[in-house]
Amino acid sequence: MSKTSNGMRQSQLFTKTRREAPADEVAKNAQLLVRAGYIHKEMAGVYDFLPLGLLVLNKIIGIIREEMNAIGGEEVFLSTLQDPAVWKKSGRWNDEVVDIWFKTQLKNNSELGLGNTHEEALTALMTEHISSYKDLPRYVYQFQNKFRNETRAKSGIMRSREFIMKDLYSFSKNSTQHLEFYEKAAVAYENIFRRVGIGDTTYRTFASGGSFSTYSHEFQTVCDAGEDIIYIDEAKRIAVNKEVYDDPDVYAATGITKENLKEAKAAEVGNIFTLGTRFSEALGLSFKDAEGKATPVFMGSYGIGPARVMGTIVELMSDDKGLVWPAAVAPFAVHLVSLGKDGDEIEKAADALYADLVQAGVEVLYDDRDLRAGEKFAESDLLGIPMRIVVGKDAAATGAFEVVDRATGTVAKKSREEILAA
Amino acid sequence: MSKTSNGMRQSQLFTKTRREAPADEVAKNAQLLVRAGYIHKEMAGVYDFLPLGLLVLNKIIGIIREEMNAIGGEEVFLSTLQDPAVWKKSGRWNDEVVDIWFKTQLKNNSELGLGNTHEEALTALMTEHISSYKDLPRYVYQFQNKFRNETRAKSGIMRSREFIMKDLYSFSKNSTQHLEFYEKAAVAYENIFRRVGIGDTTYRTFASGGSFSTYSHEFQTVCDAGEDIIYIDEAKRIAVNKEVYDDPDVYAATGITKENLKEAKAAEVGNIFTLGTRFSEALGLSFKDAEGKATPVFMGSYGIGPARVMGTIVELMSDDKGLVWPAAVAPFAVHLVSLGKDGDEIEKAADALYADLVQAGVEVLYDDRDLRAGEKFAESDLLGIPMRIVVGKDAAATGAFEVVDRATGTVAKKSREEILAA
Repeated sequence: MSKTSNGMRQSQLFTKTRREAPADEVAKNAQLLVRAGYIHKEMAGVYDFLPLGLLVLNKIIGIIREEMNAIGGEEVFLSTLQDPAVWKKSGRWNDEVVDIWFKTQLKNNSELGLGNTHEEALTALMTEHISSYKDLPRYVYQFQNKFRNETRAKSGIMRSREFIMKDLYSFSKNSTQHLEFYEKAAVAYENIFRRVGIGDTTYRTFASGGSFSTYSHEFQTVCDAGEDIIYIDEAKRIAVNKEVYDDPDVYAATGITKENLKEAKAAEVGNIFTLGTRFSEALGLSFKDAEGKATPVFMGSYGIGPARVMGTIVELMSDDKGLVWPAAVAPFAVHLVSLGKDGDEIEKAADALYADLVQAGVEVLYDDRDLRAGEKFAESDLLGIPMRIVVGKDAAATGAFEVVDRATGTVAKKSREEILAA
Repeated sequence: MSKTSNGMRQSQLFTKTRREAPADEVAKNAQLLVRAGYIHKEMAGVYDFLPLGLLVLNKIIGIIREEMNAIGGEEVFLSTLQDPAVWKKSGRWNDEVVDIWFKTQLKNNSELGLGNTHEEALTALMTEHISSYKDLPRYVYQFQNKFRNETRAKSGIMRSREFIMKDLYSFSKNSTQHLEFYEKAAVAYENIFRRVGIGDTTYRTFASGGSFSTYSHEFQTVCDAGEDIIYIDEAKRIAVNKEVYDDPDVYAATGITKENLKEAKAAEVGNIFTLGTRFSEALGLSFKDAEGKATPVFMGSYGIGPARVMGTIVELMSDDKGLVWPAAVAPFAVHLVSLGKDGDEIEKAADALYADLVQAGVEVLYDDRDLRAGEKFAESDLLGIPMRIVVGKDAAATGAFEVVDRATGTVAKKSREEILAA
């Protein structure tokens, strides 16, 4: 962005807001984000991130990265183009097995895939780096675009054909070592959803497992725009999804009772899954144990879509005036709105406060444009930055600035010193 | 990465080094980077970035980002999937016009492209944000994967089928406003190449222009692995490429003389290009001037491939022992190599120095593994971190650590205080 470290003048921001969303956009999250100039719709299910949208996305990514590093994750960046050879080994190259492939061709007509997930590529890669039990456990993750050829793509940035995903894969020597990490990852996920501001409405949700575990876990955020139905035990802060709702074992395993569950629409913002040796056996990823015996590596996978999280936040927190960002993911902490112009006292006071805020390390968007106050406030509401500081005639004269909380609408008068001390 | 802020224990790094490069890898940069565990080859022309490689790539990206922000660039992130409609308007959808397309299909069989550049998408997008001369100039850039269906891909990460690129596009009201930025961008490029450590061998190189300017400019780094031939005026620090070498006008324009030029092989690490109104006219991007007259926006494009820069650095600076990173792009500043084990005095001294370095904010990779000294030193040379600090029996006893400069091999004895003060 054209910004001086943490500050940016709005006159320099290229995006414009608009009153109407594109006629073909049915998802509330995309409607608002397009109107506010955070994203641009290329075509159904394909969106660009514009400066303000990219700032929010990068804040979410930053939080996820910190939590993945804290549990021992090592970051990589794998390719989109996929070699059919590894996918044939796992049996997932076939379009009838995986029905959301995008495929393309080299000039010699040999086929390539666009990665929709990376178990195959990473498992094959790890055969060069894991050979002994001493090399385990390992946790490897990336932030990378996935491509999924969805038939319908009507949920805005919550389900797109091309979307950024954090996918972590764990490599353990056995299910005991695996489960120790699996639980750590679940806690890290809870930390992430709390930190981005949707902790209260997000539930660890029991879902069906696979050959190597009875259950997997989804992280489901209660949200009208969600595509799933979950059943929540509010007291225990856990839920079950539709797949396992009628499975008596899940009640025995969790200690919840069907009668206490509350049905809700929800959006899956993350999931964690025990893969076992499904991919390590198919792709030859094994290690020698302490006795020298070759054993397949025991794996898990852990996904979060940062853009889906962003869309979910919009669905949950926006109001009829526009976006409302939690502080941790807001593009800026402060929206400084000047009602002055052409070097008048108001503009001078606003310029001075802007300089002070930047100096103090506050992330601030400074609306230094010459527009009507009403237009500026409406646009400020649409952008959804948590705190608005208004510099008008009064403030210039008295040094008391109007400070508006975007989420609650609360207005307070604060001095320069009070603002900078906050 | 599994690291405590700026420090990482090598026992936690999942990548292993190897003695031999893959048999099918002919490029020196990829041979060394694969051997050192910085990258993994998925297939010809497609590479993954592993933890150390991603650290280097991100350092280069960080430097480019700073320089783009400093000249007013605003960062976005556009989609890979491309709508044929906009490319048909510019005439570049046809495979005979652009012969490096990767294309794919939606389920309804309609075709999509994978972005090989983003003039079309961004120009179409900007029609929603530029309408008046007051909206100009604007500078918009991204770091994003490009896909190019190269027939041959034998230059390692210097020319791949999928590669990250920084592409900036400028939008100006006329060629005067354009040229003012074009020159600023050229200076920013020179800053970038100097900062990443290849400034001395990189030349602003005159290349053929287009309909809207006589010349474009390449930034060419003298390098045996380069695919281009350039002709250098050493005193003036500029060069011309093959296209314009026989054009008398270029000598008139630059004041250089053919006789003084020195021929060299070079790698193109960046380019800047005046696009004029080629794309704005095709895609309807115009603005109203002060008199209210609609006028097409005057554009420029500015590219750098961070991975190509990384490959070029490897080609230029590595030696027969391995990689040699300039400080600004090294994955870590210090490689701390302990020769101790199992809680002995040496290991305690190394642990203490590691804690001190991390505390002091030094980026340090700590080789805490129990391996032979010779093996550790050979691997340290291969990894190419600028400064190696060895903790052996002597250091533990006397507090004088052996400090080795990777580039020169110079060895010095330094105390803890001297190391931390540096």
